[in-house]
Formats: sequence, C-alpha cells, structure tokens
Amino acid sequence: MIPAPFLLYLGRSADALGIKTSRGLAVFRPEDCVGEFRHDDCPQTLGLPRLSMAEAAAAGARTLVLGIAGPGGKLATELVEDAAAALATGMNVAAGLHERLRDQPSLASLARERGLRLFDVRDPPSDLSVGKGYPRAGRRLLTVGTDCSVGKMYATLALTRGLRERGVRADFRATGQTGILIAGGGVPVDAVVADFISGAIEELAPARDDDGWDLIEGQGSLSHPSFAGVSLGLLHGAQPEALVLCHEPGRPHMRGLPGRALPNLAECLERNLEAAKLTSPRVRAVGICLNTSAMGKEAARRLLVRTEDQLGLPCTDPIAFGVEPIINRLLCSAPSALSMIASH
Amino acid sequence: MIPAPFLLYLGRSADALGIKTSRGLAVFRPEDCVGEFRHDDCPQTLGLPRLSMAEAAAAGARTLVLGIAGPGGKLATELVEDAAAALATGMNVAAGLHERLRDQPSLASLARERGLRLFDVRDPPSDLSVGKGYPRAGRRLLTVGTDCSVGKMYATLALTRGLRERGVRADFRATGQTGILIAGGGVPVDAVVADFISGAIEELAPARDDDGWDLIEGQGSLSHPSFAGVSLGLLHGAQPEALVLCHEPGRPHMRGLPGRALPNLAECLERNLEAAKLTSPRVRAVGICLNTSAMGKEAARRLLVRTEDQLGLPCTDPIAFGVEPIINRLLCSAPSALSMIASH
Repeated sequence: MIPAPFLLYLGRSADALGIKTSRGLAVFRPEDCVGEFRHDDCPQTLGLPRLSMAEAAAAGARTLVLGIAGPGGKLATELVEDAAAALATGMNVAAGLHERLRDQPSLASLARERGLRLFDVRDPPSDLSVGKGYPRAGRRLLTVGTDCSVGKMYATLALTRGLRERGVRADFRATGQTGILIAGGGVPVDAVVADFISGAIEELAPARDDDGWDLIEGQGSLSHPSFAGVSLGLLHGAQPEALVLCHEPGRPHMRGLPGRALPNLAECLERNLEAAKLTSPRVRAVGICLNTSAMGKEAARRLLVRTEDQLGLPCTDPIAFGVEPIINRLLCSAPSALSMIASH
Repeated sequence: MIPAPFLLYLGRSADALGIKTSRGLAVFRPEDCVGEFRHDDCPQTLGLPRLSMAEAAAAGARTLVLGIAGPGGKLATELVEDAAAALATGMNVAAGLHERLRDQPSLASLARERGLRLFDVRDPPSDLSVGKGYPRAGRRLLTVGTDCSVGKMYATLALTRGLRERGVRADFRATGQTGILIAGGGVPVDAVVADFISGAIEELAPARDDDGWDLIEGQGSLSHPSFAGVSLGLLHGAQPEALVLCHEPGRPHMRGLPGRALPNLAECLERNLEAAKLTSPRVRAVGICLNTSAMGKEAARRLLVRTEDQLGLPCTDPIAFGVEPIINRLLCSAPSALSMIASH
C-alpha cells in the first residue's frame, strides 16, 4: 500500500481533465490529502492548502502523488525534477503514467539512497492470461462512455456506494490509475499488453457466487479512435449483465482530438450493447450518467429529464443528484438469464 | 536483420495452426530454410529435411527460429532447453512469443558466452504514441478475419504480390511475428501496450502520396472474445479504404475456444465495415478470401462461387486460385473520396 497522507501534484496543468487523478483522491479520499503542489502559473486548484515540498513533508505528507496525465502518459522533465525534490524532502513518490518512475536513473538512485519508494501504479500484473469469454457466475455492471474522462469512475464509485447503502454486496473494480489509487488495487487496463486486455478484466472480476455485484470502471470509449481497442477488450472481459452510459454534455470534441465530434448517445449505447453481446448475450442498459458539473442546477435537471425521455432509461448526475433511479432499475429489472444459468 | 539460413522449430506441436510461424517462413522464404527440427512424437512436418541441432549447424543454419505459438505466447521449459541446445551448437535463436528469450537467464548467459544473439521478434517499438484517427493520405487495404489464423497474412502477402504484378506500388505491412520474420520488419501489434494499438498501426502505415498501397496484415477477429480489442484498434489505426474478409471454412469453433461458434460471414463483414467507419467513413469491402487447403479442389470451387453469390463480392482462395478477382475489384472500383481528399 502507498503510505498516506498524500501531497497532490498539479504542476502547471492548465487542463481540468489533466489533473483528474489528483482530483479523484481529493474527492474520494479527502482524509488522506494534506495539500496540493502547484507551480506559480498553474490555474488549477483542488481547494487544498498550497504547499511546497518542504512544507508538505513538515505537515506529515508521506507520498507525493503525481496525479496528472496527458495522452500517452509521458513523464516530462519537470515531473522528474519535481519528483526528485519530493524525494529530497523525504517523501515517497507515486505516479500512474506509462513511463515509469523507476526507469528514471536519477529518481531510482535518490530513492535508494534515502530509503524511500517509487510507486508505479500503472504496472500491469506480469502473469496475465488471454481472456476466454466463457460464461461465468456473478453479477457485473460496467460503465461505458461517449468519451474519455466523462465521469465513468465517479459513476462507478457512486453506484457501488448506492448498492451498499441498500445492503447489497458490491465491490468497485478499478481499471485506471485514479481508481487504483482510490481503491488500493485494480488493473491498469490501458497498460497491459494488447493480447491480454479481456483476460486482465476476467481476472479483475472473476466468477463470484455470493449474490454480490462487481462494479467495473470503464475506460475510453468505443467511439474514440485512440482507445476503442481498450474499451472493446474491457467490455468483452467484463461480461457485464448491466451497462451504464456516461457522458459529459457540451464537450466540444473528443478528448485530445479537436475536430472529432462526440457520438450520439443512443447510437453509442447501441454499439456498446451490440458489442457486449459477444460474451454477455442478455446484457441490458440500466441508466445514463451525465456529468453536469459545468451546468446550472436547473439546466442540468431539464437535460436529465429530456435525456431520460429520449433514451427511455433512468438518467442522473451521480454526484449532483445521486444514483437512486439507476439502482432502482438495476435491482428491480430481471437479472440476465446468463448470470442465473452460470451461477446455478 | 536475423541471420539466415534458418532451422525451423516444430517441437512437439500436434496442432497445424501452432506451427504457423515456421510454416510461413517455409512457404514465403523457402530459399532461407535448411531444415526442420522436431521431436520424435511430433506429427507435423513442413516437408523439409529433419535435422538435429548439430546437423543443422553443420548444414550452415545460422538461426533457430522457434516458430511455434500457443495462446498467450508462453515460453515452455522444453523450448528453453531446445533453444539452449541450438546456442550450444553455435546458432542464434529467434522467437516471437510474449515471453522473451532474453529474460531467460540460462539463454542470455549462453548467448553472451558464445557471442550469439537472441532475437525477440515480438518486442514492440518503445516510443509509440496514441493514435489520432485523423484522415491521412495514402491507399490502404486491411485483411480482417472471422477468427485467428484463418489466412489473413497469406492473403495480404498474395494481394501485395498481385498488385506488384500489375505494376502497382504495394508494400506488405506486417503486424504479427510470422509476417515480421518474413518481411524483415513490422509491428507486433498484439504485444504493444493497449493504449497504443491504433497508434502503432498509424506509425506502421503512415501517410504516403506516391499512389502506392499499404497492405496491412490483420490480427485476430472482432468476433473473438480474447482478441477483439487488438482487432478493433488495428482497424481504427489502419484507416483502410478497402477490407478483405478472410475465413477458413469448416472450422469447428473459434481458435482456442471450444464451444464458441464462428460468426456468420456477412455479419462479421458488416461489423468490420461499421467499426472501420469511425476513421474511414467511405471504407468498402473488395473481396473474400477462403482458406480451402483442407478441401478438395472441386468442392472448394463450388464454395467460392456460392460465397461470391451470397456476399456479392469476389471470393477466392489466394493460394489455390490466386487473387485476380479481388485485385480487379480493388483497382476498378472507385477509390474512397476520403483518400482522394487527404492526398490532394
């Protein structure tokens, strides 16, 4: 486990989506976050005390979390320098980028000298197998999206809490760096070798027969030209009986791809259901989650109602309005025959 | 480059598909293959002289190619022992498995002592970027399949030769270990980190404006629960204007998955066209390739005619009957507007 409390890194990130890992920890593990580190020209804040490395160490922070991400997961020079500064004050460093902290000789030797640790959260398990797609017992829900970073992890965490509040066994299954940092475990699915995408998810959410749910965090989007392969393998490996579609209204283009429009919600959901049927023939959609954090409350409410009417599914913003309608649909509609057959 | 000539390894493989890398070299680079190595209980042969390691080295073989593959690409104990024996006689060793030769301490030290080399063909490039899916110049054809190992590489190589015989510039773009060994280069797409599947293919077949074709070897199948993610990312990265669907008639189940039926050809093609449109809106199908090597010639002919009638596309076995009908369709039907726009 990564030693808490954390100092959350924002660096110079000008992009609200770019700091989503730091923000995820601030939102879901606030008790473990002592402050944020940002350079003078950083327009972002999480509302935490702004601390220098030395101030954070003095305040008890045990790990600097480099909770920022750009496409491709590169480790920029400045990140390495800032990580070195954290080590110099006695903090461990954690990151979830494709490029590994331990592969930076300066950081590796500094950590060794100081007796500190480098945590590369995006390291996939080394002994994965290819997926098989055979029916397995258990109840699984997967969040899918119109795009990257539209709120799939938030929705999955909220749905997990929602089920637990109803007394239903439910486990969040993390597939991305932020989720893994929050949950303390999971599989960084976009970092596994391509052949093992679906196999990694079969291992993350294996057969279970305790009537509990696995709520699996989706990644990317079947409609995203950069990452659709990951999303499809995840969908097949998850073998979900229930899908929840996540979307952020008003986004001007697909994440990282100016000029590329977002897909239509109904079409996107249909594509996901169609593709999911390969391993989960009776998959059904149980709801839509909209991230309305950039909208006024009244406009958000109207949009939720309109979307619900259009798609014929419960539609909510899981953070602003809760997940009750989706939990109701999930628990009150019939489980798939597949899951019943597989579990008996 | 891997030093030829080669000794082709069959081991104890009882599965004709399991030796496809050795067979590919025997078929497409016969002048570079001095013999085959198989254990006494191996029912397979490529029709080459059966040689021991020592005999092969004496006959001039410079590299043992471990041209066998099972799902998951594990390096079995016996493979390591046989590779060590080859090194002991003075041969280099090449393999295309997920587990690397160089990660076997016994092989690494033996190679070092002897001044020999270990070639891990499945090593992906280390500096890949995520795909973007923006329209790029050039003409590209991709082979897709109903399943793994149905003849996509053979079809792609045959189509490349067919275009060249017509005086059209054409390059084979390898995406698997066998193709890479044959072509001397390429990207092992199933071995790249999942985030970079489509990006790897954009790099393998970048924009070109010489009116030449890139013929890209497909992998897996959108209908295969183990590997569909790889196939989808490859499809998006290829941005093909033309698809050729490959299939092996009579296969009892999907490769590696007893009980899982093969998809219907028309449906499978439709799924591929639909998915391809994300990055290549005017993609079209130009033919069907059936691997009829297990059928009589007359039965094969009848099946080709029937399939052609059913799907309304030229249908051939590229090895048994050549690729003329597909080349005709490819060159005589209109190029996609996308490729014309992108190249002018």
